[in-house]
Amino acid sequence: MVLKMTDYREMWKNLNMDIETHDQLCKVLPQAFGDVYLSQVNQPENMAYYNTVVLNIHGIRPAELVEAQKKGVKVFGTFCVYVPDEIVFAAGGIATGLCGGSQFWVHSGEKVLPTNTCSLIKASVGARIDRTCPFFSIADIFVGETTCDGKKKAWEILNKFTQVYVMELPQQKRAKDVTAWAQEIREFLIKAEEITGNKVTVESLGKAIKLVNNKRRALQRLYSFRKLPNPPISGKDCLLVSQIAFYDDPVRFTEMTNKLCDELDQRVRDNVSVYASGAKRVLFTGTPMAIPNWKLHHIVESEMVAVVGEETCTGIRYFDNLVDESQTTLEGMIHALAERYMKINCACFTPNIARIDDIKRYVREYKADGVIDVNLKFCTLYDVEGYLLEEALKKDGITVLGLETDYSDGDFAQLRTRVEAFLEILNNC
Amino acid sequence: MVLKMTDYREMWKNLNMDIETHDQLCKVLPQAFGDVYLSQVNQPENMAYYNTVVLNIHGIRPAELVEAQKKGVKVFGTFCVYVPDEIVFAAGGIATGLCGGSQFWVHSGEKVLPTNTCSLIKASVGARIDRTCPFFSIADIFVGETTCDGKKKAWEILNKFTQVYVMELPQQKRAKDVTAWAQEIREFLIKAEEITGNKVTVESLGKAIKLVNNKRRALQRLYSFRKLPNPPISGKDCLLVSQIAFYDDPVRFTEMTNKLCDELDQRVRDNVSVYASGAKRVLFTGTPMAIPNWKLHHIVESEMVAVVGEETCTGIRYFDNLVDESQTTLEGMIHALAERYMKINCACFTPNIARIDDIKRYVREYKADGVIDVNLKFCTLYDVEGYLLEEALKKDGITVLGLETDYSDGDFAQLRTRVEAFLEILNNC
Repeated sequence: MVLKMTDYREMWKNLNMDIETHDQLCKVLPQAFGDVYLSQVNQPENMAYYNTVVLNIHGIRPAELVEAQKKGVKVFGTFCVYVPDEIVFAAGGIATGLCGGSQFWVHSGEKVLPTNTCSLIKASVGARIDRTCPFFSIADIFVGETTCDGKKKAWEILNKFTQVYVMELPQQKRAKDVTAWAQEIREFLIKAEEITGNKVTVESLGKAIKLVNNKRRALQRLYSFRKLPNPPISGKDCLLVSQIAFYDDPVRFTEMTNKLCDELDQRVRDNVSVYASGAKRVLFTGTPMAIPNWKLHHIVESEMVAVVGEETCTGIRYFDNLVDESQTTLEGMIHALAERYMKINCACFTPNIARIDDIKRYVREYKADGVIDVNLKFCTLYDVEGYLLEEALKKDGITVLGLETDYSDGDFAQLRTRVEAFLEILNNC
Repeated sequence: MVLKMTDYREMWKNLNMDIETHDQLCKVLPQAFGDVYLSQVNQPENMAYYNTVVLNIHGIRPAELVEAQKKGVKVFGTFCVYVPDEIVFAAGGIATGLCGGSQFWVHSGEKVLPTNTCSLIKASVGARIDRTCPFFSIADIFVGETTCDGKKKAWEILNKFTQVYVMELPQQKRAKDVTAWAQEIREFLIKAEEITGNKVTVESLGKAIKLVNNKRRALQRLYSFRKLPNPPISGKDCLLVSQIAFYDDPVRFTEMTNKLCDELDQRVRDNVSVYASGAKRVLFTGTPMAIPNWKLHHIVESEMVAVVGEETCTGIRYFDNLVDESQTTLEGMIHALAERYMKINCACFTPNIARIDDIKRYVREYKADGVIDVNLKFCTLYDVEGYLLEEALKKDGITVLGLETDYSDGDFAQLRTRVEAFLEILNNC
């Protein structure tokens, strides 16, 4: 399969992007993607859509957003799975993910942020200040949250370039914290109305809740194939689908993902798997893996081992739990949203015991032989929680490996050595 | 002046402390303190009290706490200037600071926390798990808060040893955040009543508010001498007084500090200063300096330059602003407490613009020739804010130096070189 990037230079120029620097970034992706993805044998045919989207990640969707803006639609850039996209869509806006995933941007971020900040935050800020990401240039407003120290302070820097609206996520999960989060959603709704000039109605919010739930349902359906004894799709491919979920048009994404699942249903009927029968199974837990972070999946799956799930924000945490669709008032819907989003168990909460229960459940459901807990370097929250998680999993007899990485490729060989040693242990279990 | 540590080994043994390891820690302090403090010429006579207290930091006050506990009094260990001591005292308890300041504990903390966590958090956790600090062993309860990522997760580890009650500090400063903080104080009051078995009354809370305000007033009086053209006391000594404020009996501390101030009044009348006339003046800003962190003050003052203030939690942030004493109901008092504590401008808030205004004001009030912004390594919050602070101060023509340090002595020579270069600039201004 040959895929090529279309030329979107005219659009990038109109977005006041730094074209020369951006060209360098564009040059890197096809090679990296080719090595990791296009080398796969037996990739489902319907992955072609995602392959094209990712190879044109700075083109296809940005062009759609620019077109929408010409019609007066406002674009909301978000960084976190706690920000309720439903509110944005209900106000007639478009929500798009903005997490910076490339090492290319890290150096730029370090101009204004401490080196010992996680790559995700450094890359996000770097992408904006260097004008080398169309999503950052397009967004009319950024929606931040108070999830971690690095992000809290990054908003103050990003706010110099694009207006940042900050939602205050509670730090605990008491009943009153859910109420406080509902109030934050209520205020965000007013902000979204102000930005878009549209009123959110019972109809539009009800429709938006279904829209986003349908995306979650499609992802849940996709991930259910990973629970099977012989998964018909690779972990790598599923990760890519999850990553694209943050950027893509939700209706099309849902349709394409369900189409992919139809193909996988057929594969199951035909007893087709991408893994050898009896392949060992690994669950990843920890910090998010934004595009093009495929390093660890590539290492594990190159060893003929299945990655059966990601308990991360670019995985199960993103689509687990639906919003109650039975509410008939705005207040009821806002509360349903608060309830659903507060069920996400991020390490930013103290304590966060339910996350450990989630992971134990995923180990059973996805039939994982072992867990690899990955921490993006300098993420204190997941780093400390990793200590508590390892302790809890070991107590239950679950084999676990803790890894730390960043966006660079410098640790590839070292990570591979550690993963190989871990898989050796799994093979001897 | 010769001071020696009394032997409190029997008490430490009864507290189930690790005596052998603790002995090693005790050996280090007198030398370090002697080098930095007892070498000073012309130290005010009334500093003798603080010298004795710090040299017996693990003895005098712990012995008092143990005695109080024998009478049924409960001890609340706290880590942060946002926790309202007034509530504890009003409930008949004793509040004591617990911040770990020694490099001695850092290694122990690293057994359970990531290396890239700030020394303060690592030392605090290390002091508890290794049983080498009587304050940590004595406390009936620890009171944490949600100020930063490292602390939020450290509570989960400390909770395995001693019950931790977490107060949720808002992350922004909108009107509703002050209300939310008042509610947290209300709930903490109930917790304090539960722990002590005593009811908080209008009388007891009113008395406690005055008690802590008086301590603040004494510190404000002390720091006012640093605003004079020829300060009668060194920055080092003032830092020590502020550090001891966290641990000492508030009534005695206030009395002793006022006594020291009386002596300073006399020095002013006699035109006695510890600095040469026209000495350059530096204001420190940034992260706290817990005992025995005297490194930077020592470096600066050894250069015959005056440290005229610390915009830190072990400085002005601790005692700036009083609680309104005119309230006559519990509700009124709780709101007055919330208002006062929310005026503290910590980098954990986003945004935190008022802190920059504070610092500009302190530069004027303390007549500082320059600012040294100090960041305790791996404190993301103050590190990022340092970038914004430097930018703002430079814009106003204020000379500023950003430094990063930790609890080790390894960077002493390097810091001295940088400080010398900075003072050279100040001298040429």
